[in-house]
Order: sequence, then structure tokens, then C-alpha cells
Amino acid sequence: MQNALQSANPRRATVPERLKLILANCRSGWSLPREFYCDEEIYRLDVERIWRHGWLFAGHSCEVPQAGDYIAFWIDSDSIIVIRGEDGLVRAFHNLCRHRGSLICADARGRASRLVCPYHQWTYAIDGKLLACRGMPDDLDKTQLGLHPVHAREIEGLIYVSLAPEPPDFEPAQMLLGPILKPQGLTRAKVAKSIDYEIEANWKLVWENNRECYHCNVNHPQYIKANFDHYNADDSTERIRHRIDAQVKRSEAKWAESGLTVSHKETGMTRFPDAERNIWFSANRTALVEGWMSETMDGRQVAPLMGDYVDPDVGTLRARTLPNFWNHSSCDHGVSTQLLPAGPQSTRARVTWLVHQDAVEGRDYRLDELLPFWQLTSEQDWEICKNQQRGVNSTAYKPGPYSPVKEYNVDAFVRWYLKMLA
Amino acid sequence: MQNALQSANPRRATVPERLKLILANCRSGWSLPREFYCDEEIYRLDVERIWRHGWLFAGHSCEVPQAGDYIAFWIDSDSIIVIRGEDGLVRAFHNLCRHRGSLICADARGRASRLVCPYHQWTYAIDGKLLACRGMPDDLDKTQLGLHPVHAREIEGLIYVSLAPEPPDFEPAQMLLGPILKPQGLTRAKVAKSIDYEIEANWKLVWENNRECYHCNVNHPQYIKANFDHYNADDSTERIRHRIDAQVKRSEAKWAESGLTVSHKETGMTRFPDAERNIWFSANRTALVEGWMSETMDGRQVAPLMGDYVDPDVGTLRARTLPNFWNHSSCDHGVSTQLLPAGPQSTRARVTWLVHQDAVEGRDYRLDELLPFWQLTSEQDWEICKNQQRGVNSTAYKPGPYSPVKEYNVDAFVRWYLKMLA
Amino acid sequence: MQNALQSANPRRATVPERLKLILANCRSGWSLPREFYCDEEIYRLDVERIWRHGWLFAGHSCEVPQAGDYIAFWIDSDSIIVIRGEDGLVRAFHNLCRHRGSLICADARGRASRLVCPYHQWTYAIDGKLLACRGMPDDLDKTQLGLHPVHAREIEGLIYVSLAPEPPDFEPAQMLLGPILKPQGLTRAKVAKSIDYEIEANWKLVWENNRECYHCNVNHPQYIKANFDHYNADDSTERIRHRIDAQVKRSEAKWAESGLTVSHKETGMTRFPDAERNIWFSANRTALVEGWMSETMDGRQVAPLMGDYVDPDVGTLRARTLPNFWNHSSCDHGVSTQLLPAGPQSTRARVTWLVHQDAVEGRDYRLDELLPFWQLTSEQDWEICKNQQRGVNSTAYKPGPYSPVKEYNVDAFVRWYLKMLA
Repeated sequence: MQNALQSANPRRATVPERLKLILANCRSGWSLPREFYCDEEIYRLDVERIWRHGWLFAGHSCEVPQAGDYIAFWIDSDSIIVIRGEDGLVRAFHNLCRHRGSLICADARGRASRLVCPYHQWTYAIDGKLLACRGMPDDLDKTQLGLHPVHAREIEGLIYVSLAPEPPDFEPAQMLLGPILKPQGLTRAKVAKSIDYEIEANWKLVWENNRECYHCNVNHPQYIKANFDHYNADDSTERIRHRIDAQVKRSEAKWAESGLTVSHKETGMTRFPDAERNIWFSANRTALVEGWMSETMDGRQVAPLMGDYVDPDVGTLRARTLPNFWNHSSCDHGVSTQLLPAGPQSTRARVTWLVHQDAVEGRDYRLDELLPFWQLTSEQDWEICKNQQRGVNSTAYKPGPYSPVKEYNVDAFVRWYLKMLA
Repeated sequence: MQNALQSANPRRATVPERLKLILANCRSGWSLPREFYCDEEIYRLDVERIWRHGWLFAGHSCEVPQAGDYIAFWIDSDSIIVIRGEDGLVRAFHNLCRHRGSLICADARGRASRLVCPYHQWTYAIDGKLLACRGMPDDLDKTQLGLHPVHAREIEGLIYVSLAPEPPDFEPAQMLLGPILKPQGLTRAKVAKSIDYEIEANWKLVWENNRECYHCNVNHPQYIKANFDHYNADDSTERIRHRIDAQVKRSEAKWAESGLTVSHKETGMTRFPDAERNIWFSANRTALVEGWMSETMDGRQVAPLMGDYVDPDVGTLRARTLPNFWNHSSCDHGVSTQLLPAGPQSTRARVTWLVHQDAVEGRDYRLDELLPFWQLTSEQDWEICKNQQRGVNSTAYKPGPYSPVKEYNVDAFVRWYLKMLA
Repeated sequence: MQNALQSANPRRATVPERLKLILANCRSGWSLPREFYCDEEIYRLDVERIWRHGWLFAGHSCEVPQAGDYIAFWIDSDSIIVIRGEDGLVRAFHNLCRHRGSLICADARGRASRLVCPYHQWTYAIDGKLLACRGMPDDLDKTQLGLHPVHAREIEGLIYVSLAPEPPDFEPAQMLLGPILKPQGLTRAKVAKSIDYEIEANWKLVWENNRECYHCNVNHPQYIKANFDHYNADDSTERIRHRIDAQVKRSEAKWAESGLTVSHKETGMTRFPDAERNIWFSANRTALVEGWMSETMDGRQVAPLMGDYVDPDVGTLRARTLPNFWNHSSCDHGVSTQLLPAGPQSTRARVTWLVHQDAVEGRDYRLDELLPFWQLTSEQDWEICKNQQRGVNSTAYKPGPYSPVKEYNVDAFVRWYLKMLA
């Protein structure tokens, strides 16, 4: 729970000499040295420099639709509560009482008109102000004892928080993600299902896995039926390129009137992130393979159209923000993945399926049709990550080379990561 | 299991600079900094300065009534055995063989005429002397290889041990506790039930919880029906004060002839501990609310009178000794709580219900009437402590202010603790 | 998983000053100080100096009879794969891909014509060469990216590996063990049963337990019915000595024609190891008690004769190699124990029963007759070791004296260990 790094300066610890040496040995285009995946001290540095610095996906607006609705989650040892105010704004706080530190909300979600600490009933408004603390001296300055605030932003149905005193600028993300997310209608969605996982792997292994489709062929039999992105410069045949081009052209023509655009038109995955230009967010719309209307087991639409869509043929909208979010959305549903660090070799993941807010389970959609595509794909990835972690723990592990044509995004992720850490 | 602190000098390690800095930042009247509740090094210091120094409640005389009867328990990584000798005296030893260190008694209780190590059958008298070690050279000095002794004291049915080479003076505790405990007759008691808990909280959080009734109103609905001590200077109405005065007067008059005295006559909890006067022990007799004869769910007596009592109307006898014991005794039963440290965020608690030694379960008392009052109250507290620990682990936690009227004893505990640590 | 020791220099870390002090305090003829059994840093040193240096028993030849048959196991955090090649030779590799470090074989045994990483299908020949890595640049030097090799040796049905870049000489072990193992026919054996254990004790406690029969009388009631080695210089009566002499003489006469010799003729255990002469391997043939043909519950043969034996009356063949192997073999079956370190207070043990390769369960042998003798004896020892560990963890533990007549081999083990560590 605790170490020298944190105690010395929770905001900006200096990097110990031992780690500087390891950092200096990182080789461009090759995987990271072992310590980055199992060392407690590097994990602590990750938490400080990345998880308590940048913008983290916290949940969906539709999880806290009314004033007083809240969700709570853990970032390492910090519990955060996100709650909608009387003014409709979403706010976030550290989920602990200013009196003696007790957790205030032990449940992961709920509704409250006041936040009352279960220990001595110190009572906070849902905007964090301390309202009551019976037994305390009259001259106690309550204005100094509100809940510790956490920065929060809401963008087209997604909620972000930052634990930093002065978080990085959110505007660039807002400007890019807002317009592209809008037609999906996540603001008018509801959660159909949410599954929590504990992945026995460092959070970076989970991201590296997410940043390439080099592993898809054998590991994701259902995913590759719907998508083109496991094809790369080296193995996209003439026929594949032709298919992609045809799909892109067809889609561009068809989508023009509804204002949707194909923003990723090539083989392989779109490039992300970009450390040099400080791009930790991105989104694009991609055509699915011929005949597929949704990322489902057989490509058929399985729930009512979401958002502004009037036709199921909208490809997939994909968004991702570092360090902890990605979403694939089809015409009829969206799937968000939230990562949270829980130790050098442990990552919590929550996968959430969203459908139109008016859709009724049993009548408008069935979970056994909605879930399998991304549940299988996710669980296949967690298994991969676990076995990679077990191998990387070996003292024999040495960094290996990335494929320039297949792992450019893994390399880009590593460069982004090292820049954040420096 | 192990750290630099211990290795350097198991008896009196110097306080590392890092901890000195944290100690220097403690603010009087405010809760302790985060490190005191989750830092491994501070936990180690706690074990050395407090748990391997002072007098620890070990168990009840009635748990080891005959020569050879023993109980064993763990103080952090040290197993201690308490055994009654042929001479009727209670002795304590480290529960490990002087040969190769094996645990001697793996069970938590039993009877033995000799203590025989299960590994190679080295055999010790129940006074700790090494009697036999076949296979060893004839010139081996057996007098140097007796069990490592631990100081032990017995006081009106309670057994205390100290791991210190030279423990603090026990006489003051003996002189104060002896007379007030005597009429309860714990020497003529038996264990009706014992429940073991593992509380996921630092031992100090458990004590701080015990040192105030600020939390009782909402958390202990049954406890507050029987007692007055959740009322404090700030919220004792005229009517409450009148009720207490009336109960005290009535009790004083009635108890005079049996030699019992009301030693706590005011609202709130009696003041304890007192770091300045080195008071780590205390006891008092308190009136219950009108009509309550016992700390049971409805206030009725549920077992035969204990000790010297001839009438159920004796209020409650309460005793507590730092760092690990408290007891509430009614006319018909007593309840002891023993705490033992098991890690920075883990405390073992054993709650033991005692009744008159001649009482027969089913005939004279029923567990479903005897247990609920303190079982519920205890388990409510453990839940509180667990959630406080989870909050305190947050990097956002900062010390908060104690209520002078409600948490004076928490503040007193913290002052006692810091004095012990210094 | 990680510490300064490893990072600084995985091959040969300098011994920290703190440990030097502890090492300097070791007293000849007395058990080791507490730190050797519970300190993380000493455990790390053990792994480096002993487990990643010497020859480790990996398994039996009969577990990988055909080309492509493999077994995998863990040495601390290193997974090792042992696989038989097309050329019939056994090879060993670190079980992780040179690309991004994923574990290649997640199962403990199997058969493969190629070793294919499940992540991105990098493909290795079973001799470790990298054959294919689609997507990588053409100019990637595949010869530099074969599986990390581990030294391997096969000797009369036993497989040994060493993680050291330059392992110690194996020839002396080969020369001594080869001839004495040969008649047992482990090369023509099969595994009848294998049981895995996690012993909650430091690996050295397990070895110390194995190095004396001082504890056998009370703890191993079945073992002492079959063997003489719990008798030592101090407690071998005239009658015992006479029985042993008679058995030895009888056996020598009878075995002469089949070339078997009684190599341990006295009371007590044969002396092993010998730090001064660098003897980490040994084997001998010992007579069983009168009328016992096999180490079974009643001494009767329970499976077909193994190897070159033509008569069940062959005593027991016993072999042991430090740091992780011992075997007791009777005329009809052999039992191997493999130890592997899994933390300062955790040791994995695999006990394997071997019978003639042609023996058929149910027809030629029954597990309920084959297993009990060594299953009981092993589990009795693991229980002893666990309770010794729990005692040794006490801060009150101090080294105790070894019996010169009963624990000479424990003392020899400790001297060997300290020499390896220095």
C-alpha cells in the first residue's frame, strides 16, 4: 500500500537511480525490460505519473442519470465516487470522509440525496460541501472539510475524471471525440450488462495486447469474421485490398447523407497513440466486412438502432483514450472497456454493453445474442495477457523486436508510456 | 515476516528518519497520518514498542483450570503458550522447541503433563525446563535450553503476559483492577462461547473505534438501548441528565450494602487512557438504563448470577487494558475481547462469553439469548473498521479533527500510542 | 517477483552487508539463524546461488519418451520446458517466446512437433531454433532469437537441468550415479502416479528434515518397520547391530552373482552431502529389514520386478542430489521426490511413483498398495516442516544444537549450503 516514493512526495517523486538505469536501457522498437511489468517501484511510478495524472474513463452518463445517482470505483488504493448534482453536472470526489477517513459509499453504485459517512454521520451535499458534523466545535471551519474534489468531465455520454491537482487540457479530446461520438447516442443509452474481470497482468500488457491485431488470426476467430484490421501491409492480398476499397467506397456513398464518414480506410489498425503530438485520445469509423451490420456472432443487428442512426449499415465507431478506455460501437450497441490498475501484476477490467435507453431486454434484445462477440474476445485477451505476464516474470526474459508492419501501435504505446514516465 | 528493523536489533530499533518525519507531522487533536495505518515499517515498530513490550491479555484463568491445561495464541509471528503448573501458577513460554525451532503445540488449547516437541520429542516440564533430548551429548547443558520464558500474571481470573525482557510494572494494574473485578467472580467462571474474527484493519483503528460512542447511535441500535454512554456533553438533554442522576442515586443506595459502587456517574465514556500518568488499565462500574439487568437484547438476565452477586441489579462492570483487552460484565455474564496484531491491515479478535462455572447450557442459559448483544455490537464495529481502513488507504486521506466532546478518548489513545512509540 | 539483488546483476550479486553479518554469526553444529528461513533477500540469494547455479532434477526420461514429448515446471519465477528432440536427445529451454515473452507451453506436459507461441504464433523447432515469425522484417536475424537454452543431461532415466551459463561439472555425478542406478531400469519405467504438494516451509527445512531419521520413530510408523536407518550410534542395541550385520552378510552373499552390492552397511543414514569434497550427489544400496521385499505397507512386492532384477530381494536403492531430488527404489517400484522453491516459506514438491513400463494398473499393480508407504511418509514430513516453519518465524527462535550422532547430515547440509552461498 505504501512506499518511499509515495511518502516522499505524492505528487511528483523523483525517479530513483535504479529506475533511471532501467529506463536508459530501453531500446526503441523492442519490448520493455522485465521490470516494467513486475517491479513494485515502477508500478508505483506508473500510478503517480499516469493514473493520478491524466484523464481516466470513469463510467457512462447513463449510469448516473438523475441527481444523486453515483458510481464508485478504485484506482489502485484510491476510491473515487462520481455523482450527478442537482444542477445536472457530474462531479467526482475521493470517496472518504474528512473526519477519520472512512469510506463513505461502500457500494459500487447507488442513489443518495446526501453523502452520509456511515461511521459518525458526517453529512456532505452531493456537491461535496460538508453540511453537518454533530459534536464538532461550532468554530470548526466546515468550508475546509468538504470532500476532496476530483476533476470531472462529461462528453457525449462518457465520464472522465482526473486525480491531478492540475490535469492536462481536456479540450483537444473533447473537440475530437465529441462530434464523432454524437451520432452513436450514448447519452440516450442504458447499460444492458456489465462484467468485471481481474486480469493477472500488468496494465501495460493489456494495452499492448489491445494495440495490435497481430494476435487476432488464431486467438479471435469471431472478431476476424467481422473486421479487416488483422490484415496488415505484409499480408493484405490484392483481393483483401480490393474488398476494403469496395466497402469504403460503398459506405462513403451511402453514409454521405447522414453525415457519417469512414475515417479509417486502410488495412491494419489506425495509428494510436502519438506521443510526439501528445495524442492520448482518438476515434474513427470503420467499415465492417461485407454484409455485417454489427459486431455480433453472425453480423446481424441484435438490438434497436441507437442514437441518430436510421439504418444499421454504419460500420463500427471505435474510440480509445489512454490509459484506460476503449469502445467499439455498432449500429445497435456499444461496448466499453475500462481498465484500472490493482498492482504490478493485476488489472481490473470492466466491460459494459450499452443499448438504446428504450430497449427492453427480452423484447428488444437478448443478452445471449448481445454479449458473446465481445465477451469472448475480451476473455481471450485476458488469457493471453495472463500467460504473457507469467513468461515475462522469468529472469530469462529479454526485450524482443516489434514488427514494424503489425506492432507499430504497440511501439507507439511504449513511446507514449516512456514519455509520460520521464 | 522480516525486515531491517527486526534484524538490526529486535529489542530496541532506532526509529528510521522517514518515520521521524511522519511522527513530527502528527497534529494534536487530529487523527494520525495515513502511514500509521498501512505502513509495514510502522507496523513493525508497533509490534516492537507496544506488542512486545507491555502487558497483553492472554486469556482467562478458567481456560486453564488444572495443571497442564494450556492455551496458545499468536502475537504477530510469535506463538505463545500459557500453561498452568503443578504448583497452580500460570506460566507462559514461546511455543517453540529450543532444538530446531518447531512449534510445540499446534492446537489452540489442550492439556499436557509434559510439553513434547512433535519433531524429535525433546521433552519439557510444564515449568519450561528441558527434561529430555535423546541423542544429544551428555555434556549438553540442559539448563540453558529450557523454553524461552514469557512473563505471566494472573489477576482475578484474567491472565496477562509480557514478551519484554523487563516488562513494565504490573502492580498498579493489579491494585486497581483486582478489587473492582473481584465481585464478578471470573475466577469461578467458565467459557460459554468464543468467536474468532479476522478484522481487515490496523489494530489502532479497532481501538479508536472502541474509544468513542460517537458512532453508536446509528451503528449500534441494541447497545444504545442498554447504555447511556453515547450521550455526551453536547447532546445530553436535561431529561437524559436527570435519568442518569436518578439511576446513579438509586444504584448507590441499593448497592451500598453489597459493597459495590458506581464509579462512573456522568454522561459519556470514562476517560481512558492517560498517557501522561501512564494509565493503560482502568475499570469502573456503571449503571445501565432503567429496568435493564444485563447487556442482553431485552435487558433481562439470561444466566445465573456470577461471583458474589445476590441481586441482578448491579449495572455493568467494565474493564480495559491497552493494547489488547476490554470486558463488559453484567450480573449474569461477562464478555471479553482480546485483540492481536496480524499485519498492518489485519487484526485478530477473539470475543469470549463467560458465565458462572456451574451454569449448564440449555438448562441455565441459552446461547441464542446470551450471544446476540455483543456479537452484533462487535461485528458492527469490525465492519466499520474495515471500511475505515479502506478509506484511510487512499492517498487522498488527510488527518481530520477529533470532537473534543465525543472523541476525547480517541485523542487520549493517540497520545498514549505516540508516547509508547517515541 | 523482483528485487534489487536481481536487477543489479542477475548472475552474481554481491552479498549485502546485512546478510554478511548474519552469515558471520552462523555457529557450526547449530541450526541456522532465523533469517535463513524467512528472509526474502536470503531467499533471493538462495535462488541465485543454488537454484540458478547447480544441477536440478527435472523429471524422468520416461515422461518424455518420444520426440516432441515435453514437460514444463517452475523454478521460482522461471518456467522451464524439457523436450525430447528428433535426435532422441533431451533439451531444455526457458519456456517463453523471444518476441514479447509470453509463456509458450501453459500445460505441465504434452507433445508438440513445433513449439508455437500462442500469442503471435512465433514457431520454434523442438531444438529451440526460431523457424517462423510472420510479420517481422526479412532481415531479422532469426539465429539470435532461438529459445533461451538451458543445460540438460540424461542419466539412466533421470533428467537434470542447470540454469547457469556455465554449470558445474556433471561428470562426477554421472560416473557415480550411472552404474548404481542402472539395474533399477528407470529407463524402462513408466509413471504410475504423481502427486504435487505445496509445502508451507522454506526449501532448506524440507532438506534438513530429509537428512535425518531422528524424527522417524514417532512420526513415521510405517517407514521404521521397513528400515534400519532410524537407529544411530547412541541407540543401536547389540541386537540391532546383530540384525543389520546378518542382513548385510546375507544380502552380500545372495546379490554377488547379480552384481548388486550393499554399499551402506551400518546403522544410521549414509553420510551426505560433503561440502569439503563438493559432493552434492550420492547413492547406495541398503538392506531392508528381515523379510521385507519392498518399501510397502507390509513389505510385500506389489508390482512386477523392474530393470535387471530377477529376484525381489534387492534391498533399496537410494539416490539423492542437491538441491532438489531424492529417490527410494525397491525391486518393484521407485519413488522420486522433486523439490522446487516457490518463496521464502513455500516449496513445491512432486512425488512420483515409477513401475516397469509394461506393468498395467489393475492387472499388475494397484495404486492403493503402491502409494501409501511413501505418500504417508511424505505427508508426515510436510506437516513437520510446516510446523517447524511456523515456530522458526518467531522472533524468539534461536539456533539450537544438532545431535552429533543423529543429525550429522543436517549439519553437513548446512555446511554445504553456506559454502554455496558464500
